Amino acid sequence: MSIKIGILGYGNLGRGVEKAVMASEDMDLVGVFSRRDPATVKVDSGVKVYHVDALETMTSDIDVLVICGGSATDLPEMTPKYAKLYNVIDSFDTHANIPVHFANVDAAAKSANKIGIISCGWDPGMFSLNRLYAHSVLPGGKDYTFWGRGVSQGHSDAIRRIDGVLDARQYTVPVPQALDAVRSGQNPELTTREKHTRVCYVVAKEGADKEKITNDIVTMPNYFADYDTTVYFISEDEMKAEHSGLPHGGSVIYSGTTGGNTNADGSTSPVNNHVIEYSLKLDSNPEFTGSVLVAYARAAYRMNQSGDCGAKTVFDIAPALLSPLSGEDIRAHML
Amino acid sequence: MSIKIGILGYGNLGRGVEKAVMASEDMDLVGVFSRRDPATVKVDSGVKVYHVDALETMTSDIDVLVICGGSATDLPEMTPKYAKLYNVIDSFDTHANIPVHFANVDAAAKSANKIGIISCGWDPGMFSLNRLYAHSVLPGGKDYTFWGRGVSQGHSDAIRRIDGVLDARQYTVPVPQALDAVRSGQNPELTTREKHTRVCYVVAKEGADKEKITNDIVTMPNYFADYDTTVYFISEDEMKAEHSGLPHGGSVIYSGTTGGNTNADGSTSPVNNHVIEYSLKLDSNPEFTGSVLVAYARAAYRMNQSGDCGAKTVFDIAPALLSPLSGEDIRAHML
Repeated sequence: MSIKIGILGYGNLGRGVEKAVMASEDMDLVGVFSRRDPATVKVDSGVKVYHVDALETMTSDIDVLVICGGSATDLPEMTPKYAKLYNVIDSFDTHANIPVHFANVDAAAKSANKIGIISCGWDPGMFSLNRLYAHSVLPGGKDYTFWGRGVSQGHSDAIRRIDGVLDARQYTVPVPQALDAVRSGQNPELTTREKHTRVCYVVAKEGADKEKITNDIVTMPNYFADYDTTVYFISEDEMKAEHSGLPHGGSVIYSGTTGGNTNADGSTSPVNNHVIEYSLKLDSNPEFTGSVLVAYARAAYRMNQSGDCGAKTVFDIAPALLSPLSGEDIRAHML
Repeated sequence: MSIKIGILGYGNLGRGVEKAVMASEDMDLVGVFSRRDPATVKVDSGVKVYHVDALETMTSDIDVLVICGGSATDLPEMTPKYAKLYNVIDSFDTHANIPVHFANVDAAAKSANKIGIISCGWDPGMFSLNRLYAHSVLPGGKDYTFWGRGVSQGHSDAIRRIDGVLDARQYTVPVPQALDAVRSGQNPELTTREKHTRVCYVVAKEGADKEKITNDIVTMPNYFADYDTTVYFISEDEMKAEHSGLPHGGSVIYSGTTGGNTNADGSTSPVNNHVIEYSLKLDSNPEFTGSVLVAYARAAYRMNQSGDCGAKTVFDIAPALLSPLSGEDIRAHML
């Protein structure tokens, strides 16, 4: 029996989820749901497109609804709303607001005996898992997260809003010296500027003041002011040819120790250093994120089938629930 | 309230577990249990040493028993035996026998309403988790495991059993070209010989035939015959000065794709490659393995407290159960 999936929102992430559902033999895609006029939404898989209002009456058709909205305004409203009707999953990533979002989704999901997984993807998501596993195994160590080299859509959008800018792509790039220092187990203190640089490719409108655009970018608070930022002006053709993808990735590096304890005889055990690194090199950020969401959608369905409900994060979900294979199979082939 | 831990077996791994318990604020070490005469076992922490037979009557004193024995003969007998009395955890790593061991521990643990976690550590253990997460997120990809550079105790022991050998240390070393090919996402087919080399440091007895020792090593079936093996003869002093540690580590590298599907309009989506890598660089293999066992001992206790029982592996255990922190704390600091 297949797990019936609905997708709410059809941007880059929604298309990534669609591809991942198509690649999952134990899942069926029921439909794409949009706030737009369904007639204007062309979906890759050819699955039926519904207006979002149809979700009010399709509870028996969908096992898990994957909500592909933005964290700023969409998800805080949508995820609790639909957790009252469906098992849901989202990729909410506004870190400071996670406690409130978790509480809202928890109350909604519990009232309907549904599962609501929040903040799923790779960061938050797979990176979070690796921070938790490392801290749990080696208490007292230090974790570092590096992002990139990859396209930040938020930073690219921020540049596009500057007067005179036609198009822009911003790459976040980890500083190699910082990566090396962390990997060596030195546990350095690193400022924002020392960890990442930002590289921007900008298409300017004809006659625009490039010097002013550059200055507007590099001094933009929160987005660029704390970083060493380089701006390159390129043509529309170059943008299309060389920057149409959405690659991303990064590393979580954890450095901790064992030993160093005082023994009963008064001696001190030698300190041993351990470095744990998890890294991703992704050709497509939204397709990988969509793949993570779909694996966790499987878990949401199974947890709900076994009687569980409420808000969950990747921390609360046993890894075996993500796999379409049986316990015997995963023990035989992956343990 | 602290979790009360017992350690059965006091070799390198038992000492590693002891250090990890000492570093865990929510745990107390109740005792070390040994088949040897307790008077002859000196433990670092100064905790009381009991003869193993004392375990028959200490069920109310210990929440989780960490079993530090060998996979060949100790664990197949010990883990099911003590799962009838305690929540237990072991590091069973004889891959072909995992199904039988799992079934035996499952039956014993269920009969006593206890939890029995098997095959925990880093491989099997943390490496297994990363194989499972990667396969679940990107179905149809390929995983590669590289070990080292690190000391293989099994291979070192095998050399020590050769006539004329006083002491030996064997390092498993991944082949850099193989690592590079896998990291690039090429999904190469690699033979045993192409993945790892073996480097042996041997102290020969006086007058021993070094040529014969070398030949006995490099032709030894299962252990060395399928590898390119290098043998160095060194002095006892060099062995002590340069090879007294037990470093290890390695990488699980997974390469998979998204896209490539045929769309409703007959077009084919572009294929995107993704590479996931988890790597460990450990100064002390037994201390890191002990730390993993102790984090999972915490989970064993909690799962049993919540009414669960039977055999488990790392696949069955929600990550949050490993951390001494609350759900709120881990969501705030690690998500």
